[in-house]
Amino acid sequence: MSKYTMNSPTVQNVPWQDKPEDLKGAPIWRYDKNPIIGRNPTEKVARIFNSAVIPYEGAFIGVFRGEQVNGIPYIYLGRSKDAIHWNFDENKIPFQDESGKEFMPIYAYDPRLVKIEDTYYIIWCQDFYGAAIGMAKTTDFKTFTRIENPFLPFNRNAVLFPRKINGNFMMLSRPSDSGHTPFGDIFISESPDLTYWGKHRHVMGKNPEWWQSVKIGGGAAPIETSEGWLLFYHGVTGTCNGLVYSIGGAILDIDEPSKVKYRCENFLLTPQEWYEERGFVPNVCFPCATIHDSKSGKIAVYYGAADSYVGLAFTTLDEIIDYIKNNSAVRQEDTELGIR
Amino acid sequence: MSKYTMNSPTVQNVPWQDKPEDLKGAPIWRYDKNPIIGRNPTEKVARIFNSAVIPYEGAFIGVFRGEQVNGIPYIYLGRSKDAIHWNFDENKIPFQDESGKEFMPIYAYDPRLVKIEDTYYIIWCQDFYGAAIGMAKTTDFKTFTRIENPFLPFNRNAVLFPRKINGNFMMLSRPSDSGHTPFGDIFISESPDLTYWGKHRHVMGKNPEWWQSVKIGGGAAPIETSEGWLLFYHGVTGTCNGLVYSIGGAILDIDEPSKVKYRCENFLLTPQEWYEERGFVPNVCFPCATIHDSKSGKIAVYYGAADSYVGLAFTTLDEIIDYIKNNSAVRQEDTELGIR
Amino acid sequence: MSKYTMNSPTVQNVPWQDKPEDLKGAPIWRYDKNPIIGRNPTEKVARIFNSAVIPYEGAFIGVFRGEQVNGIPYIYLGRSKDAIHWNFDENKIPFQDESGKEFMPIYAYDPRLVKIEDTYYIIWCQDFYGAAIGMAKTTDFKTFTRIENPFLPFNRNAVLFPRKINGNFMMLSRPSDSGHTPFGDIFISESPDLTYWGKHRHVMGKNPEWWQSVKIGGGAAPIETSEGWLLFYHGVTGTCNGLVYSIGGAILDIDEPSKVKYRCENFLLTPQEWYEERGFVPNVCFPCATIHDSKSGKIAVYYGAADSYVGLAFTTLDEIIDYIKNNSAVRQEDTELGIR
Amino acid sequence: MSKYTMNSPTVQNVPWQDKPEDLKGAPIWRYDKNPIIGRNPTEKVARIFNSAVIPYEGAFIGVFRGEQVNGIPYIYLGRSKDAIHWNFDENKIPFQDESGKEFMPIYAYDPRLVKIEDTYYIIWCQDFYGAAIGMAKTTDFKTFTRIENPFLPFNRNAVLFPRKINGNFMMLSRPSDSGHTPFGDIFISESPDLTYWGKHRHVMGKNPEWWQSVKIGGGAAPIETSEGWLLFYHGVTGTCNGLVYSIGGAILDIDEPSKVKYRCENFLLTPQEWYEERGFVPNVCFPCATIHDSKSGKIAVYYGAADSYVGLAFTTLDEIIDYIKNNSAVRQEDTELGIR
Amino acid sequence: MSKYTMNSPTVQNVPWQDKPEDLKGAPIWRYDKNPIIGRNPTEKVARIFNSAVIPYEGAFIGVFRGEQVNGIPYIYLGRSKDAIHWNFDENKIPFQDESGKEFMPIYAYDPRLVKIEDTYYIIWCQDFYGAAIGMAKTTDFKTFTRIENPFLPFNRNAVLFPRKINGNFMMLSRPSDSGHTPFGDIFISESPDLTYWGKHRHVMGKNPEWWQSVKIGGGAAPIETSEGWLLFYHGVTGTCNGLVYSIGGAILDIDEPSKVKYRCENFLLTPQEWYEERGFVPNVCFPCATIHDSKSGKIAVYYGAADSYVGLAFTTLDEIIDYIKNNSAVRQEDTELGIR
Amino acid sequence: MSKYTMNSPTVQNVPWQDKPEDLKGAPIWRYDKNPIIGRNPTEKVARIFNSAVIPYEGAFIGVFRGEQVNGIPYIYLGRSKDAIHWNFDENKIPFQDESGKEFMPIYAYDPRLVKIEDTYYIIWCQDFYGAAIGMAKTTDFKTFTRIENPFLPFNRNAVLFPRKINGNFMMLSRPSDSGHTPFGDIFISESPDLTYWGKHRHVMGKNPEWWQSVKIGGGAAPIETSEGWLLFYHGVTGTCNGLVYSIGGAILDIDEPSKVKYRCENFLLTPQEWYEERGFVPNVCFPCATIHDSKSGKIAVYYGAADSYVGLAFTTLDEIIDYIKNNSAVRQEDTELGIR
Repeated sequence: MSKYTMNSPTVQNVPWQDKPEDLKGAPIWRYDKNPIIGRNPTEKVARIFNSAVIPYEGAFIGVFRGEQVNGIPYIYLGRSKDAIHWNFDENKIPFQDESGKEFMPIYAYDPRLVKIEDTYYIIWCQDFYGAAIGMAKTTDFKTFTRIENPFLPFNRNAVLFPRKINGNFMMLSRPSDSGHTPFGDIFISESPDLTYWGKHRHVMGKNPEWWQSVKIGGGAAPIETSEGWLLFYHGVTGTCNGLVYSIGGAILDIDEPSKVKYRCENFLLTPQEWYEERGFVPNVCFPCATIHDSKSGKIAVYYGAADSYVGLAFTTLDEIIDYIKNNSAVRQEDTELGIR
Repeated sequence: MSKYTMNSPTVQNVPWQDKPEDLKGAPIWRYDKNPIIGRNPTEKVARIFNSAVIPYEGAFIGVFRGEQVNGIPYIYLGRSKDAIHWNFDENKIPFQDESGKEFMPIYAYDPRLVKIEDTYYIIWCQDFYGAAIGMAKTTDFKTFTRIENPFLPFNRNAVLFPRKINGNFMMLSRPSDSGHTPFGDIFISESPDLTYWGKHRHVMGKNPEWWQSVKIGGGAAPIETSEGWLLFYHGVTGTCNGLVYSIGGAILDIDEPSKVKYRCENFLLTPQEWYEERGFVPNVCFPCATIHDSKSGKIAVYYGAADSYVGLAFTTLDEIIDYIKNNSAVRQEDTELGIR
Repeated sequence: MSKYTMNSPTVQNVPWQDKPEDLKGAPIWRYDKNPIIGRNPTEKVARIFNSAVIPYEGAFIGVFRGEQVNGIPYIYLGRSKDAIHWNFDENKIPFQDESGKEFMPIYAYDPRLVKIEDTYYIIWCQDFYGAAIGMAKTTDFKTFTRIENPFLPFNRNAVLFPRKINGNFMMLSRPSDSGHTPFGDIFISESPDLTYWGKHRHVMGKNPEWWQSVKIGGGAAPIETSEGWLLFYHGVTGTCNGLVYSIGGAILDIDEPSKVKYRCENFLLTPQEWYEERGFVPNVCFPCATIHDSKSGKIAVYYGAADSYVGLAFTTLDEIIDYIKNNSAVRQEDTELGIR
Repeated sequence: MSKYTMNSPTVQNVPWQDKPEDLKGAPIWRYDKNPIIGRNPTEKVARIFNSAVIPYEGAFIGVFRGEQVNGIPYIYLGRSKDAIHWNFDENKIPFQDESGKEFMPIYAYDPRLVKIEDTYYIIWCQDFYGAAIGMAKTTDFKTFTRIENPFLPFNRNAVLFPRKINGNFMMLSRPSDSGHTPFGDIFISESPDLTYWGKHRHVMGKNPEWWQSVKIGGGAAPIETSEGWLLFYHGVTGTCNGLVYSIGGAILDIDEPSKVKYRCENFLLTPQEWYEERGFVPNVCFPCATIHDSKSGKIAVYYGAADSYVGLAFTTLDEIIDYIKNNSAVRQEDTELGIR
Repeated sequence: MSKYTMNSPTVQNVPWQDKPEDLKGAPIWRYDKNPIIGRNPTEKVARIFNSAVIPYEGAFIGVFRGEQVNGIPYIYLGRSKDAIHWNFDENKIPFQDESGKEFMPIYAYDPRLVKIEDTYYIIWCQDFYGAAIGMAKTTDFKTFTRIENPFLPFNRNAVLFPRKINGNFMMLSRPSDSGHTPFGDIFISESPDLTYWGKHRHVMGKNPEWWQSVKIGGGAAPIETSEGWLLFYHGVTGTCNGLVYSIGGAILDIDEPSKVKYRCENFLLTPQEWYEERGFVPNVCFPCATIHDSKSGKIAVYYGAADSYVGLAFTTLDEIIDYIKNNSAVRQEDTELGIR
Repeated sequence: MSKYTMNSPTVQNVPWQDKPEDLKGAPIWRYDKNPIIGRNPTEKVARIFNSAVIPYEGAFIGVFRGEQVNGIPYIYLGRSKDAIHWNFDENKIPFQDESGKEFMPIYAYDPRLVKIEDTYYIIWCQDFYGAAIGMAKTTDFKTFTRIENPFLPFNRNAVLFPRKINGNFMMLSRPSDSGHTPFGDIFISESPDLTYWGKHRHVMGKNPEWWQSVKIGGGAAPIETSEGWLLFYHGVTGTCNGLVYSIGGAILDIDEPSKVKYRCENFLLTPQEWYEERGFVPNVCFPCATIHDSKSGKIAVYYGAADSYVGLAFTTLDEIIDYIKNNSAVRQEDTELGIR
């Protein structure tokens, strides 16, 4: 019997593997056949990583960052029966604008995929005279209609909430600069119509815990739970040999999600396997999606590994919420409303 | 008889001085008693610069960047009969939020002042967990009600248009980073209500002309003319000894101001006087406001000098528009709608 | 029957391995026993990489970047019967100047080896009050006579063409700076006598394809083919955790090699094996030589891996030329004569 | 029969493995079961590395850099029977100040452990309004009394000598800056009482040998030998993809240890195994301690690997001193007294 | 009648000028004939600045940073009857070490001059394999005996207290790095004998007030007053065009001077005159000495201007202490004991 | 009667002013009506500086860096009767290539002008896919024929010798990088035909004297004297507020000018006047030309001031050579042949 509950559908075929006995640290464990997506998945794509998946018509569908053999990333559609083995379309997703005219960004990466009511929204990073947030919607995964850029550049790591709050759409994002951005906090913005955005609030920032001392950014779409919005995000630290991306966890207030209720001071997962430590960008664990089953409480976390692979890790609602609460360290910047 | 017309009130007491005979380059000339505001204007303020003024009740009123003796800038109110000699309040402008509670940003600088219909809007740069755009409104210059931050950080140099376009408020801004920002273009955003903002468009960017090759930013509120919106802005170049800020001019499309009709390839004014070249930040001419008389076509440009003084320069509508048109060099990025 | 032809000798014992069936992307495949040269090949040399080999007297000979155990690189001679297993001299190559006096640069790295008429030329990077191009010639691999530095510093990655063009020697190089050089294009220069150089031309530059967006540099000596000069070069991109070096391919005009006829927009090979991703400089594939057989069309590409190993990859003339042509994306800077 | 002698106790159970036959380069070889300490050694510690051990009561004891799961390092106590398999306390070492009040630095890393007369001293890096040297002493490994910071910030890599020289305590350190410090030499300071320090001398600096061309820092506590103080230290070089830490060796004058008698121009050990090249900070071999037996001349060197593991390597007194002497290259800065 | 008292000798001929009537801000005013020392004071010295003076035998003597015409600074002796007009020795001060052997640092700059009991101490910045603190003593200004470097590099801006406290010599310093140091706090250290130093404490740091937000450093030797040690120091801010050095004021606890009792949140003097804003390093006011008369309470502050000139400013004990107290803003880092 | 002689024509109308009596330091003195060229000399040019002049047909002619009002520099022709008052062409110099086709570089700056035999050569810096050396020749100052770029980028500050040496043209240059270049030495190259260049030699480098510790570059065309080639060059130092350019002097060997015979350790002229310290780039004295009379020994040095003005300074052959010799400090790098 669950201690906590999720407010989301059941997903009976959520991918799963039991917890290893000798696990130390946070109660989240890697799939033992990781990485689930390897190099050169298609003729024109060298690497797939930082991607988002969702249950769809009894199986699974996803939007994937496909690093083309010319080095430029675009978003590709993939499908899977078990959410572990994936087939990818050969071609990029063919966006169109509201008038039906073809729309293709100069590049597109790090997509998230969120269902709100009956529509699926894709949010990614693209060029808008600088890195900014791109958006599109679909109901059938055949027609993808682009929605205008919600924010000015420079911004990355936007994540929509899976439902409106107080009547408004809500979106996390991480304002940044035009390069590799050695700083960055998570903000939230709201919109009545997905066209005009405002009431921006600061959610939480990088902090003195070293693993998240350089910047942080939203990861998977928040999971609605009886304790608040469960957010898997990434935290970044810097060494003399580059950045290290780990996975962190926080729980946001249900009605005022700019307020952080609990924030785990420990990373949940940090690079330590070869596919996380070796690749195009070494030392990256970058969460972008979860598949979670409200009945069993099982949560599967999908994360990009070393900008080269997709990895999968498992946890349960009860275990992860308890761990976050038991190791919570929130600061004033986290718990305040976030307006200045 | 004017060749071009302004769509704005007459201001008979616009400050003025005739053009010197030996003027070379652009038809804009400095007031010969510059700087009009010197060091230590009040007990607690060491320098006033980058400030905005407006006609008000037959005289003039303004919002001023006052660099306090602790080095932190805030906004101060000033009044003048002739728009040249100014008296300043001893204390900062006492903002309040919509509930009437006192609001004081951590710092506030580079204000602009725009009248739309019967309300005066102040827009400035302030801390919102990073440099961002602050706003407030007043109708009497006694009560100043803060409006929420329109944009996520990091942003600077926001400028409101003096009227709605197609039913929406329009604002220029210059997205940036958390430091001295070695890049930056001008964008425009719109809002039905000053709360939610969207339809962001790229207006124009830094370009190959060296004087504006590092970054640009909006300056004075655009002047509505028969040729389009006349915009005085700043363009920045970099030398081995720092940045140099010059004044540039452009004319934007009346109905779609993200499209640049004319953009002068030459600077209009570049630092060459001692009060522009020597000071807290040497080599800065930074325009923030104009006073302009639609009857005579006279325009007085107010600009911060060397982050230490306020300077004044004069031009006429006909001369400046002709110069901008005759020396216009627009690029595709300027003339396109500015959406990607 | 070959579609294209090489204008070069037959090399019947060119090293070879057939193409794997599941190869994706470019038609170039790694030797399955890579790396062919491992750590600590001799008592005083910790790593051999970025080296060049050539057929010689029925077997093979090569000049090798040997990273000494004091960290300073010099050039070592190696010999092999099969071009896969190599024996190295214990001591550095003993250069002498034209008067017969011993000459030893302060350091020497990244050698290329080219035969023109009956002479073998070695070209490398050395200190000339800054990184610059060193040269020497030999006819017997016993006496190595130094030729004066052809160019002023700062320069790297010089590659001679295997024959004169229009009566002049031709050399590619990559002008750079005194450090790790976050920029760089390929230029070509010509000389009647290897002493005086001029008629410098820009060949091609870094470009918007991300894998070659930071800098590029010549790799193996160009192969003369019926389609033009086939050039394997390196292209570099930057991540938050450092640079990534991939192998690219282009075809230059036979008579005016500063004009690029075809340039493959995709990398041909990018780091993905442990010996390419892990080592002294992770994520490096750096081509320096080919052995190619004009009869069979087989081409063996030698490349430094992670500044720690030597790797070997195979392709055929027909396949690689078709792939380059089918995926060619040339820009004006590539196809113009390259003089300004 | 030993050629050289150590002035230190016998340690019969010094860990050991014979030299492999095919060893090339310096006479120091890795333990074939490295790393001896792997990931997640305890529930709250993700990585142990850069740590120091010492014989104690017939077995071994050590102080360990434990990187907590919140990313912040502290010092942990560990014990071992064979100096290879280690058990760690769950909690950090509980320091107290001289009045018995609890003392816990904000962070603590890279400890060394030295016995002088009957007291054990721990020296580490901690925050003193910037990175600085922390110290403590114990006689029983139960009570750990903090000694005041000997030096102003910014400093790291302090190493005490195992006995007084000319009546004074002697300490090596590496003055640095507040970040990743792209420079750094080894200095020595002396003190009559461990409270006041002076007579600072420069010992040796980074130098033209590339492997130690960025910075150097003291490693294990010097071993007193018939040739002088044998010092294992780290030398650092820089590549376009980050720093590389190798192990070097030097012999200091017995009575005036600011004078270097011999300094090996070759590294003794440089990263080449997966546990040295892959991890939180790739490419690090960082020596912090030796266990050495004066009877057999066996020396076991403990070093941090990739800021993720502890590795072990073996040498003998005769071999290592001969290698250092035979490959010695000292410069004036090394051999002079070191005062300016 | 004085409100506060100085514990120091009377100096009847302290240079003086009355306060101008229109002075705004802090009660400290410039000498109206500034700069008192101009360019090219001697044949071999191009600029004198950042220098210290003291009453001596009824007149005045000083140690001066003389920037030689080869760009290298050394310390020169100067004498004056009125402390305004100065004559300088043609040659550098001839230091000797304790054995009487000549000692000349590689460079020497920013000297301070302090009398303790019957000895005059000179403290400056010099090369000790990096920027560090040099010291010497004299009793007759003819023989100058060097004292060993008190601290490891990298350090600058050391200032001795004019008497022992609790039996120990006390010295302020500003630990730094090897370059232009974009950070820096003031520390204090003590010594029983000027040879060995310890009990280092943090005094105060850079802080959120913008004028001192980059770094701070000790200036003139502290003046003992009834309120504590009055310290004139420099605070530095950064602009896009470089650093700006202002003069600040603080009062330290008499017996535990690592504790700040009052710290003025406003600068006392900031560059605004041509000789402060224009020169070798524009925008510098850098205090190094005071001449103060305990009877009248008059204080004359000597400061380097733009690294090109010496300026003079005046205040009184009562006015300056009141201003510092009335505008004091101390933070925990300032008021705590300063040990970690 | 002259102590030394010039091997060059007499120029009776060389501009001149006698030495001021109180001159200190080097025997070179400014024209007391400096700057001789002020702001906005023509309608389209905002600043003229860094320019070269030469006697021509009894009067004077020159090539001038004209900073256009769009910020982009080009080369303009100017004429003067007295070499002090100048008239400038309104338009840029109209270069053509050897086929007579118009040639206009993307930008052109810092020209030098040298007469060899009967031809006048202009050498400047221009874009060649990066900053490089441009060249042209004229015999009548009406037709200007471009000569191909002699060197690969990145290079600046090229200076031709006024006659061939050992049958070859000789050119100084300063290899650099693509930006503001924080390093740089002077090299010399030779050519039989102005098309092919080789035998590059290092002449001299930046050195420990602080005023020339960042970079140096050739200035005026060398003057042939009885002591060797007299070279006025610029030396650069760095401060926390930017670079400072001073004028230095050296004498090169007549037949092997890569060998420095004398090099003055003191600057000859360093910024100290308002027109040198205040302007587009503060603190610049940048010599580009001399007018010198072999009969009287008078030398007039033309130098750019603050990238805003042209200044003029005077010296005599005897005085300047004596000063350089008396204060000469040459290092091995200066006096060796300069090949590696």
